Amino acid sequence: MEYTEALREILGKNVIFDTVEKIPYMTDASAFNGKEPIAVALPETVDEVKQLLAFCNSNKIFVVPRGGGTSLTGASIPLENFIVLSMAKFNRILSISPADRYVVAEPGLRLDELNDKLSEINFFYPPDPASSMAATVGGSISTNAGGLRASMYGTTKEWVLGLEVVLPDGSSMITGGRVLKRSAGYDLTALFVGAEGTLGIITKAFLKIWPKPEATGRILAYYDSIEKIGLAIRNIKASGITPLIAEFLDRITMDSLNIAKGMSFPAAASYMLILDVASTDLSIAGDLEKTANMLRDLNPIEISITRDPDEMARIYEARKGAYSSLLKVRKSSSQRVIIGDVVVPASELPAALKEIAGKAEELGIMVALFGHISDGNIHANIFAEPGNAESMSKEEEFQKHLGKVALEHGGSVSAEHGIGIEKKDLLLDQEKFTSSDVAIDIMRKIKQAFDPNGIMNRGKIFD
Amino acid sequence: MEYTEALREILGKNVIFDTVEKIPYMTDASAFNGKEPIAVALPETVDEVKQLLAFCNSNKIFVVPRGGGTSLTGASIPLENFIVLSMAKFNRILSISPADRYVVAEPGLRLDELNDKLSEINFFYPPDPASSMAATVGGSISTNAGGLRASMYGTTKEWVLGLEVVLPDGSSMITGGRVLKRSAGYDLTALFVGAEGTLGIITKAFLKIWPKPEATGRILAYYDSIEKIGLAIRNIKASGITPLIAEFLDRITMDSLNIAKGMSFPAAASYMLILDVASTDLSIAGDLEKTANMLRDLNPIEISITRDPDEMARIYEARKGAYSSLLKVRKSSSQRVIIGDVVVPASELPAALKEIAGKAEELGIMVALFGHISDGNIHANIFAEPGNAESMSKEEEFQKHLGKVALEHGGSVSAEHGIGIEKKDLLLDQEKFTSSDVAIDIMRKIKQAFDPNGIMNRGKIFD
Repeated sequence: MEYTEALREILGKNVIFDTVEKIPYMTDASAFNGKEPIAVALPETVDEVKQLLAFCNSNKIFVVPRGGGTSLTGASIPLENFIVLSMAKFNRILSISPADRYVVAEPGLRLDELNDKLSEINFFYPPDPASSMAATVGGSISTNAGGLRASMYGTTKEWVLGLEVVLPDGSSMITGGRVLKRSAGYDLTALFVGAEGTLGIITKAFLKIWPKPEATGRILAYYDSIEKIGLAIRNIKASGITPLIAEFLDRITMDSLNIAKGMSFPAAASYMLILDVASTDLSIAGDLEKTANMLRDLNPIEISITRDPDEMARIYEARKGAYSSLLKVRKSSSQRVIIGDVVVPASELPAALKEIAGKAEELGIMVALFGHISDGNIHANIFAEPGNAESMSKEEEFQKHLGKVALEHGGSVSAEHGIGIEKKDLLLDQEKFTSSDVAIDIMRKIKQAFDPNGIMNRGKIFD
Repeated sequence: MEYTEALREILGKNVIFDTVEKIPYMTDASAFNGKEPIAVALPETVDEVKQLLAFCNSNKIFVVPRGGGTSLTGASIPLENFIVLSMAKFNRILSISPADRYVVAEPGLRLDELNDKLSEINFFYPPDPASSMAATVGGSISTNAGGLRASMYGTTKEWVLGLEVVLPDGSSMITGGRVLKRSAGYDLTALFVGAEGTLGIITKAFLKIWPKPEATGRILAYYDSIEKIGLAIRNIKASGITPLIAEFLDRITMDSLNIAKGMSFPAAASYMLILDVASTDLSIAGDLEKTANMLRDLNPIEISITRDPDEMARIYEARKGAYSSLLKVRKSSSQRVIIGDVVVPASELPAALKEIAGKAEELGIMVALFGHISDGNIHANIFAEPGNAESMSKEEEFQKHLGKVALEHGGSVSAEHGIGIEKKDLLLDQEKFTSSDVAIDIMRKIKQAFDPNGIMNRGKIFD
C-alpha cells in the first residue's frame, strides 16, 4: 500500500493494515456494507489526529470518524479511498465538576461508562440512545442523539457546552467551554452536533450534567388502539405534566420481547405505553396517581404502577433492547430489521401512525412500531431481505412514505439517527418541502468552509 | 435621497425618511451613538422584507435589524450607509400548542407579552433578560439572551426549535420547526441564535415552551463577603439542588435600589443573595429549608424565606430594575453606567470577583457588581463620563481586564449581551486565547456563505 510508511510514521503501532483486522470497521449497525479502508487509524493523541488529518487532506484520502459503530444510517462505514479514524483510545473522563455542572470527556468514552461514573455522585448526562452501552460521546454528539429521556431533557444539542475539534487541515480549535452561558460569535459547537463527522474530528467534549431526579415511578398501560395513547399523551402534556420518558410498543414488539426476554403482556393489548414520572419523594405517589388517572380516562385494557427499582430497570432495559429483540421474530436469518426514524409533533401521532400502518398493509410488509411517543418520534422497523430486490424496493418505498408522512405532519425525516447514507434523498425531499434548496445550499457552503477538499466522511449527508 | 422612490415602492407607507422621526432608531441601550440611517423600514410582510433585502444587497446598502433596541453592546445601531429594519410590526403570536410544547411567534413580539399570554395556560417561555418588558423574540434570539432563570432553564439557544429567515439575497428558508427532536443536516437554527443580525432577518420563530413550576419560594440572604455567597452556591449546586434563580447584588446596587425603589437592606450587608427554589406543593417548604440551611452554614448577616407572591414579584422586579436604579446614584447626569457582562464557571466566582473589585480600586473608579451567580455571570457596572477621555480610557481598561479575568478563569468575554461594537476586540482576544485564529476564520467564512456582500449589520461582531 502506497501510504503505509507515512501512516506508520504518524501513528506508530496505532494503525491497522491487515485485511482481516479491518473487517469490524467496515460495517456499522445499519444494513449498508462498507468498502475495505486503506487503513484503520486508532490515534492516542490529539497530535496524531492533527498529523493524520493534514496527511489525508494533502493526499485527498477520505476519512470516516468512528465511535461505537452504532450508526443505523451508514454514517460510520468507509467508502472508496477511505481511512477509518477510530477514536476508541480517547476514552477517558478528564474532569467532573458537579458545582459547575459539567464534565470534560473524550469522544471515545461510552455513554453508559460516563453515566456509571456520574451516578456515584448522583448526577447524570441525560442523552440516552438505546445503544448507550456501545454508543460514545463523540458518536452521540455527531448524530444529535436523543433517546428515551429526551421527553424531559431534550436531545444532545442541549447538553454540549463546548468542543475541542481538529479540522481537516490539521489545525484545531476550542468552541464554547466550561460555562453555561455564552454569547460570543457564531455557535460553532452547535454545528458539530449532528454533523455526522463531515466537518472535523471531535477530540474533547465539555458536557453539561444534571442532578438525578429525586424520585421516579413508572406506569405501564395497555390499549387496543394507538389513538388512545396519542390522546392520553396530548392530554398529559397539555396539563403541564412532562413525562420523564413515554414509550410506546406495538404488538409485534411485545411478542418479540416475550420471545427474547420472557416478558409477558396482556393478550388483548395492541399497544403498550411505558410512562415514567419524575418528582420529589413527597409528591411522587400523588403525581403518578394523577398521571395514571389521565391514562385511565382513555380506557386501558390494563394499567399498573411500579416504583420498584429492579422492576423499573428490567422494563427499561427491555425497551432499550426492543430493536435487537425484533431480530428474534424474523422469518429467516437472512432477513434484516431496518429501523425507520421520523418525528412529528406529538399531537399528530395518531393520524401519522394510522397512515404508516396503512402503508405497511398496502405493501404487504411486516413492520414493528415503537418509539418515543412524548416527542412524536416513531421508529418503524421494517423486516426486509437485503438479497431480494422486491423486498428491498418495498422497504425503500416504505421509508420514502415514512418521510412523506413526517413532512406532511410538520415533522422531520430524521429524529435522532441522522442522515448517513440512508437518508440523503430524504434530506433533499425535506429541504425542498420547507425551503426549496436554500438551506441545502447554505449547508454545502458551510461544509466547504470547514473542509474545502471534501475529505471528511465524503458521501454522507450530502454527496 | 437617491433611494427614496425605490424604498417607497417596496414599503409604501412603512418607511421613515424624516430626520427627526429617525432619531429613536439611532441609539440603543448602549453608550454608542449611531449615524443617521438612509431610512427606517418597518415592513409588515415577509415579502416586503425579501424585497427590501434584495434591494439593499444589489445596492450595497447595509442593514441593521432592530427589535426592542435594548442592546447593551451597540448591536442595534446604524452606522454609515445603513438602513434600519425594524421588526416592530411583526408582533403576533401565530399559534400556541401546549401539548406539543411550542409557540410560533413573530420576531417583534415582546417577551413579556409572550409570557403574559402563556401564563393564561400556566406555561412560560423561560429566557428572561432583565429587559423583557421591551426586548423582543427576535432580539433575544439574536443575542442568545439569558437572564435570571437561565440557572435552571439555560439560555435562549435551548428554546428555539426553528426559524423562518430571509437571507440577504431576498431568498428565505425554514430551519428546524415544530418538533422537539431533529437530526437532519447542520443546525442552521443554532447559527442564527447569537448572530446579532449578521446573517439574515428572522421573520418567524418556533419556540419551545414549558409548564410553570408547581411551587416556588425565595430566600434572601445577606453576607459580609462575596466569597461566602460563592461557596454557598457551589455547595448547593454540588448537592444536586438547582436554583431557579440565584442573583447577587453588591452594596452600591442595594443602595441604588434603596434610593430608586425605597427598598431597605441590613446596614452591615456587603452582598445580597436572592435565591429561588422550585419544587412541588408538598416539597417546597422542605426544599427551601434545606437550601436555607446550606446558606446558614456560611454565617449570613440575615436570612429570610418568603413564599408570598406579591413580595416575590416586588423583589424580582427590583432585581430586574437594578441596572436602571444605578442611574439614580450617578455623581452627575452626564455620567453613564456602562454594564460589563462576563462569565466564569460558578466555582471560580470568588476568585474572579476579588480580582475584578481589586482592579476597580486600582483604577479609582466606581463599579457596581451584580449578576446571575448560579451561572457565574457577572455584570460589572462602570460609572463613566463619555465626554471625559481619562474616564473613558479607565472604563476601557477595566472592560479589558474583565475580559482577561473571564478568560483566565475558563469563561467567556460575553455571557448574554453579545459582541456588538463594544466587544469586537475582546472577541478576538478570546479566540486568540483559546484557538489562535482558527475559529474566527471559520466564523468569517460562515458569514460569507450567508452574506457575500457583507450587508447584514456590517461592523458588528467582525468588521
